[in-house]
Amino acid sequence: MYITYERAEFDVNDIGEIRRVVGEAYHNGVEASKHGRVADYIPELAKGKADDFGICMLGTSGEPIAFGDVEKRFSIQSISKVINLAASLKFLGFRETFSHVGMEPTGDTFNSILKLDTVSDLPFNPMINAGAIQIMSMLSNIMDFDELLGFARAFCMDDKIELNTPVYLSESETGDRNRAIAYLLKSKGVLQGDPDKTLDLYFKMCSLNVNAKTLANMGLLLACRGQNPFSGKHVIYPGYIRTIKSLMFTCGLYDESGEFGVMVGLPSKSGVGGGIVSTVSDRWGIGTFGPALNEKSNSAGGIAALKHISHLLKLNVFS
Amino acid sequence: MYITYERAEFDVNDIGEIRRVVGEAYHNGVEASKHGRVADYIPELAKGKADDFGICMLGTSGEPIAFGDVEKRFSIQSISKVINLAASLKFLGFRETFSHVGMEPTGDTFNSILKLDTVSDLPFNPMINAGAIQIMSMLSNIMDFDELLGFARAFCMDDKIELNTPVYLSESETGDRNRAIAYLLKSKGVLQGDPDKTLDLYFKMCSLNVNAKTLANMGLLLACRGQNPFSGKHVIYPGYIRTIKSLMFTCGLYDESGEFGVMVGLPSKSGVGGGIVSTVSDRWGIGTFGPALNEKSNSAGGIAALKHISHLLKLNVFS
Amino acid sequence: MYITYERAEFDVNDIGEIRRVVGEAYHNGVEASKHGRVADYIPELAKGKADDFGICMLGTSGEPIAFGDVEKRFSIQSISKVINLAASLKFLGFRETFSHVGMEPTGDTFNSILKLDTVSDLPFNPMINAGAIQIMSMLSNIMDFDELLGFARAFCMDDKIELNTPVYLSESETGDRNRAIAYLLKSKGVLQGDPDKTLDLYFKMCSLNVNAKTLANMGLLLACRGQNPFSGKHVIYPGYIRTIKSLMFTCGLYDESGEFGVMVGLPSKSGVGGGIVSTVSDRWGIGTFGPALNEKSNSAGGIAALKHISHLLKLNVFS
Amino acid sequence: MYITYERAEFDVNDIGEIRRVVGEAYHNGVEASKHGRVADYIPELAKGKADDFGICMLGTSGEPIAFGDVEKRFSIQSISKVINLAASLKFLGFRETFSHVGMEPTGDTFNSILKLDTVSDLPFNPMINAGAIQIMSMLSNIMDFDELLGFARAFCMDDKIELNTPVYLSESETGDRNRAIAYLLKSKGVLQGDPDKTLDLYFKMCSLNVNAKTLANMGLLLACRGQNPFSGKHVIYPGYIRTIKSLMFTCGLYDESGEFGVMVGLPSKSGVGGGIVSTVSDRWGIGTFGPALNEKSNSAGGIAALKHISHLLKLNVFS
Repeated sequence: MYITYERAEFDVNDIGEIRRVVGEAYHNGVEASKHGRVADYIPELAKGKADDFGICMLGTSGEPIAFGDVEKRFSIQSISKVINLAASLKFLGFRETFSHVGMEPTGDTFNSILKLDTVSDLPFNPMINAGAIQIMSMLSNIMDFDELLGFARAFCMDDKIELNTPVYLSESETGDRNRAIAYLLKSKGVLQGDPDKTLDLYFKMCSLNVNAKTLANMGLLLACRGQNPFSGKHVIYPGYIRTIKSLMFTCGLYDESGEFGVMVGLPSKSGVGGGIVSTVSDRWGIGTFGPALNEKSNSAGGIAALKHISHLLKLNVFS
Repeated sequence: MYITYERAEFDVNDIGEIRRVVGEAYHNGVEASKHGRVADYIPELAKGKADDFGICMLGTSGEPIAFGDVEKRFSIQSISKVINLAASLKFLGFRETFSHVGMEPTGDTFNSILKLDTVSDLPFNPMINAGAIQIMSMLSNIMDFDELLGFARAFCMDDKIELNTPVYLSESETGDRNRAIAYLLKSKGVLQGDPDKTLDLYFKMCSLNVNAKTLANMGLLLACRGQNPFSGKHVIYPGYIRTIKSLMFTCGLYDESGEFGVMVGLPSKSGVGGGIVSTVSDRWGIGTFGPALNEKSNSAGGIAALKHISHLLKLNVFS
Repeated sequence: MYITYERAEFDVNDIGEIRRVVGEAYHNGVEASKHGRVADYIPELAKGKADDFGICMLGTSGEPIAFGDVEKRFSIQSISKVINLAASLKFLGFRETFSHVGMEPTGDTFNSILKLDTVSDLPFNPMINAGAIQIMSMLSNIMDFDELLGFARAFCMDDKIELNTPVYLSESETGDRNRAIAYLLKSKGVLQGDPDKTLDLYFKMCSLNVNAKTLANMGLLLACRGQNPFSGKHVIYPGYIRTIKSLMFTCGLYDESGEFGVMVGLPSKSGVGGGIVSTVSDRWGIGTFGPALNEKSNSAGGIAALKHISHLLKLNVFS
Repeated sequence: MYITYERAEFDVNDIGEIRRVVGEAYHNGVEASKHGRVADYIPELAKGKADDFGICMLGTSGEPIAFGDVEKRFSIQSISKVINLAASLKFLGFRETFSHVGMEPTGDTFNSILKLDTVSDLPFNPMINAGAIQIMSMLSNIMDFDELLGFARAFCMDDKIELNTPVYLSESETGDRNRAIAYLLKSKGVLQGDPDKTLDLYFKMCSLNVNAKTLANMGLLLACRGQNPFSGKHVIYPGYIRTIKSLMFTCGLYDESGEFGVMVGLPSKSGVGGGIVSTVSDRWGIGTFGPALNEKSNSAGGIAALKHISHLLKLNVFS
């Protein structure tokens, strides 16, 4: 199960070699997807196709290295938690944000209520549902969806991000567990806004339509410390990017974060729509799309591909 | 509470500047220690002096930058978990090690039994007591204490590490919670060796006498990917070092690991004896010693000092 | 703390003696109330007066033995769970009722979510909030509040029971934890009705105005196996009364049920409004009212009084 | 699954009728045993025969009503917890006993550690492993096994109770979970004696050889408030019997206690060896033996038989 790769010896700046490695990673991802299962948390998600797979790697050159289904749009799901956190840091600041949500990994599943009702009134971190709902309750007091969508487009360097209305309606109709989380937070005096308004925004942000290219763009903005390398625009303060990356590293892949840290070693965030965003400081953004999920609800193909790329190109932050 | 430092602008290779920053960090550590409390898990620990504080930073030049109580020996406590993991990876291999222990942060306290009895039969990771005891059960079948001590000396590049017998006896006398963990693991068929023999080795490894310099050495070996930069000897395979660093990052500071990742951003491991080891790839090992602990059982002074150094010298892995 | 009473030797059919014992119990209750605290779960409850205390004991003679504040109306709170269960058994039957809720004590607090999200999807029993909400979801499909109120009046042999509107509004405004429970049940596909409608009925039933006499009446109907001893009317099938009493015994006083069973030994149910209903088969209904609660949220005075009566009159079911 | 029996109309003092009902119960027990499974917690238990079944009902006449395997000896297992509690009440008193163990049902499995490490340092009640081990730690300071065995013989009115040595050795060899519980209690400063000595006594008491007749005897002593009805000897104070019965009612059948209370309604205690002891105040002791257990680890046949007897003979305490 655990494979210790032998390192290939080649020049990591040789674009031809990199393209070859990403191509191999694509094939690994396609193979691994065969062992995954499409999510069925909500009916709309269950429509995903298990054999879709795509990978896109983007550097500051602007020339993407892309294989497979990189244009196909899918719902961003939990990857929106990164955007929500970024918006909170930008518009509310570090102190205000972390006065209302913690920074610790939980070891529990993404939608767990357990710790919230036993260990701490504050959600453990912004990467689990409770934490993201908490952050959305704060944002709901200062921003509406159009403003959040505008920020998401800037943060992902993708003006074509739209609300996927069927997914949003499906989320909203079946979101009772998230409603339970919101009301539990409210009952503890922790939630900072109206539960209905909060959840509506939360569901909408989970329902943004992105593709693997969007995620590569987002990863590249993170790699460039919050600056759009093409327009030069500073979307978000570099210190906040550091915070975001650290939380992606410790909490970004649900209860598989620790193993992903060991096996891939890149700040990343997954969503049950099949996406994973990864970032390589100063160099790359990587987006993968594969709706066939493993038993921890992470994209089976995405993880396989990222392992290959990280090993062969020596991208692990602890290399 | 949370402070976003403004970066100083200076040359990070200017040793005079670095010495100045570490000196400031030392003073921060001394101040922060005033708000901490010496551990009393075992009687011998309670003898620690709350105003002891020292910091040592060591690069491949071999010239330590040191302030305060850096020669004073204290018990390594949980930092030995890094040595145990390293020994397991070296002598048993990656697959064998992680067939018997997980890689996930728990979100629980270091000596929690909760997840072990509800979520998973395998201990969540090697940095909590249950995981370290599990690893020691495997090592107990192939090594005795003298061999482990020899490995510890090589791994810490410090031949003067000895067993602190009073601490060992105190650990052994008061180690009933660890006995409970060992027997719980045995009852699940998870423990790989005899509980008594396992615990004896575990207690002994917790009772090794180290000082801040030892920890700086250990951090430097990690920074040099397992190679002793002075003798050139390869103590442990570089790929294993990557694994160790990743687990230190996600799980190294008990249930403060996530916040430490955000605020400091260096693979580190703390012990209730007051030590913290940190590592900066290719450049530095850092050891701090301050027995006054914060409410998460981490050295209050050590954390304050490491925050200062990481910010001013831009050492955060996600900078 | 625990007192083993010496039994008085007297004729338990001597009404004068019984009156004397109940009088002593009243004084014990008044004393014990001084060490309790009025509930503040909802603002309206916090208006309760800590030194109110009353006790009423009623046999089939119809002559109450009453001391103190037995006419004063207060909100029934959790004691309504007994009425809800009775209605469910009567109108939906035993099988249907217990297909959707368990029969086991939890060992947790009355409003705990823990087991619901870890051990079982079905609420553990009808005497905790989750179980009562579950039962109300079933009833909400076949009855409206007026019908439930009618049943409550018959079950308590008290036509003057009314909705306490300020308490109901206060419950409704501050009932977010109960909303969380309802949505969690809905997310698991367990809840049988609309959450809003369910909670509205649940809050209304918690807000019924009763007094100690009402509770004595209710206890007497239970003692008479569901038959109104004055009108002769059968309100509910005797076999259901047996079920209700058993669940009151094992689960009726929150996480103090076991101790209450040992110290008092009567099927009873408490509410945070300060009421306790108890029943002595074939003989008595007992109602107590004392809003000063102990640390387990049960009426401090009520428990003290019931201990005295049970011991002196040998009413413990296991005597 | 849940059956509401129609009551037979006959004279409950007609011994011929009672014998007929117990005979039917025996047949129900034999049938129900076919759906159970013999325990395999320890190798010796796994040797039990799934189709063994016997029932014995004994009144003060001394003439047992017995069917099936009522002479066959088996290990008492958790039913010894009743004897341990009785010994603690008799030799240490009520206050001392309940200063070190609680009285609350847990809602968890019999060998759960969960609550012990999260809710309370004291074991929840004497009927779970943690509580019984705690009680044994107290007894271990004042009694040896021979004295406990003597008490057990008096309490069960059976001089032929012996230690089943193979079961004891098997318990001792495989008792690591109980060792974990003992050391956890010790680490909290709760355990009152030496863990090894405590566990040795605990394992021995679990390994007493009894048969269905022994259990009927024990139930009869409980029915007679602690007095041996044949010799007239007072084995234990009546007030303590009341306490024991109450705890048997709320906690006696593991996490099936609540349902058993509803369906049978008699103070009872089960063991994984296949025994159940039940008691009917002033009238009967009932012992059943059927090693085929249901999914809650209670004797499938025993429960089926007891349901029948309780319903037909109207023995439910809340009838």
